[in-house]
Amino acid sequence: MTIRLAIDCMGGDHGVTVTVTAAVNFVSQHADASMVLVGDPAAIQQQLKKLGASGNAQLSIVPASEVVTMDDSVEVALRRKKDSSMRVAITQVKNGDADACISAGNTGALMALSRYVLKTLDGIDRPAIATAIPNEKGGGTTMLDLGANADCEPQHLLQFAQMAEAMVAVVENKERPSVGLLNIGEEVIKGNEVVKQAGELLRASSLNFYGNVEGNDIYRGTTDVVVCDGFVGNVALKTSEGIAKMIGGMIREEFGRSWLTKLMALVAMPVLNRFRHRVDHRRYNGASLLGLRGLVIKSHGSADAYAFEWAIKRGYDAAKNGVVERIAQVFASKTAPRELPGDPPTVMPRVG
Amino acid sequence: MTIRLAIDCMGGDHGVTVTVTAAVNFVSQHADASMVLVGDPAAIQQQLKKLGASGNAQLSIVPASEVVTMDDSVEVALRRKKDSSMRVAITQVKNGDADACISAGNTGALMALSRYVLKTLDGIDRPAIATAIPNEKGGGTTMLDLGANADCEPQHLLQFAQMAEAMVAVVENKERPSVGLLNIGEEVIKGNEVVKQAGELLRASSLNFYGNVEGNDIYRGTTDVVVCDGFVGNVALKTSEGIAKMIGGMIREEFGRSWLTKLMALVAMPVLNRFRHRVDHRRYNGASLLGLRGLVIKSHGSADAYAFEWAIKRGYDAAKNGVVERIAQVFASKTAPRELPGDPPTVMPRVG
Repeated sequence: MTIRLAIDCMGGDHGVTVTVTAAVNFVSQHADASMVLVGDPAAIQQQLKKLGASGNAQLSIVPASEVVTMDDSVEVALRRKKDSSMRVAITQVKNGDADACISAGNTGALMALSRYVLKTLDGIDRPAIATAIPNEKGGGTTMLDLGANADCEPQHLLQFAQMAEAMVAVVENKERPSVGLLNIGEEVIKGNEVVKQAGELLRASSLNFYGNVEGNDIYRGTTDVVVCDGFVGNVALKTSEGIAKMIGGMIREEFGRSWLTKLMALVAMPVLNRFRHRVDHRRYNGASLLGLRGLVIKSHGSADAYAFEWAIKRGYDAAKNGVVERIAQVFASKTAPRELPGDPPTVMPRVG
Repeated sequence: MTIRLAIDCMGGDHGVTVTVTAAVNFVSQHADASMVLVGDPAAIQQQLKKLGASGNAQLSIVPASEVVTMDDSVEVALRRKKDSSMRVAITQVKNGDADACISAGNTGALMALSRYVLKTLDGIDRPAIATAIPNEKGGGTTMLDLGANADCEPQHLLQFAQMAEAMVAVVENKERPSVGLLNIGEEVIKGNEVVKQAGELLRASSLNFYGNVEGNDIYRGTTDVVVCDGFVGNVALKTSEGIAKMIGGMIREEFGRSWLTKLMALVAMPVLNRFRHRVDHRRYNGASLLGLRGLVIKSHGSADAYAFEWAIKRGYDAAKNGVVERIAQVFASKTAPRELPGDPPTVMPRVG
């Protein structure tokens, strides 16, 4: 079975030089993958020619005349640019011409267009953004939501947990991934009101719920999944980026201080390179928009070709493992009528 | 003028071996400081003797027969252990026998006891926990709240900003410290409901309000102060600790991999040591409980003597610069009656 991926070639800070290059590299490594390159055909062709990949049978082009820029509002993306590469790429998934869509374009627009074009799965109130964060155990902690939902109700957090559990179960082949609720202490009484109530829902659910986890547990890999609202998740992610960047800058600064320290850096180069590889955030590029009737992967806007290839890989893995089908299945079983013999008859909730 | 500091000698993971040692070191460097050592007199005496500081005139002992443990509930700290070293140390401030209190004990108990014993300043609804976080500029970004208030209203965030502004103004001698509102995007429309409303209050205030900042801005040092609710602040802080620890562990692991890499570490030692010093979180130990009628500094529970000395330094600086008086002054001017000639008469808000 071929995995067909629709690439929004015009999205991100660098456009085709990154997206098309990554797509070409990816198919050269994955014989069972094909790419639908969406965007300005001339620009895509030119980049393909440059890479010597013009005739590659794994690649096809679907034209789109507009581009959603990083500054475009959701409004503009939704109502004005109806032939944007982003929208056309998502539509490939909608029409069954691709198994996943990958875009480095603006997150708000991508989420809005994905919701509009693909619609949410039955039983899911709100899609969420999930990503894998490297942890001390050498694996990835799947965290969500990372910014799609700034205000959440407890049941949203429960749904996020159920979606992430389904994804991790199939992609990482774990039978019962553990779920942690991001909080400010281990005790049940800790947290804000929404999180306390979410804790009750999670405890009552059939999930493999570990309990509360704290910020440092994300990097310790205490649980496979960490659930939080989009405000907290986004702050945690960007705070992490901030401190990692500061530490990296300090290392460079200290080794670059004088000819002597530069010499030391030269001696220590093999170690510094291994370290750099391990903390290379590019290998963790690619966040999944979960809860939709189709797969959409968001790459960092500033991704280079190597990083974008990892985002493609994420879409490829998710499609190959049937993530959407699995999530749909989990929620179908929850929303299906449950009136078994002996169950009390369903009553309308009393109002007022 | 002597700065008198009350030390909760029994708090924290290590008790007198850390607290008394740090106090002795501190007074040896600061002729204008004196310490009230609160706790078990025998244990304190023994540690003083060990350090050859028994007769030091800058040190006095105030006995306390109980200890609030790390696991004690707020209830136990408040109602049962009425002669705890934590409570007696705070009472020293209340009674005017000390200018600040420093404790490495359990945060919840310390905040509850401080509120109970000292009371909040007029015009302040809730005290908050603030700390300085090292940033790329080489300074510290003052961030609050870090966990005292998991659920906040917009006006609480405004008050936090006002308190932090007052503290930074006097301690760092900055005329108009800049204030950022922690959010998930720069645009005014971003964020959850509470943060959006807090943004409006901050824009309308007389503070030097920069606008929204994101997680990475904490480490970039974009603003002098970063304001958020206690849930978000706590998660951001612990997430930072988590990733810093992971990165540190990876550096150690890579340099410890073989005799060759260990040799490289030896060569690069001067650089690695400088780097280690710069990222040494112990130099940033000591969080301030702001909004109370007295100064209380919370040290990390696992602090060693060097780290605890930094927490003492924070209390010393805050006392020397009159942080409480400055905050009281800011809020007094806000709560004072404002009916000037020509002002419309005060009316009761309409209800219903």
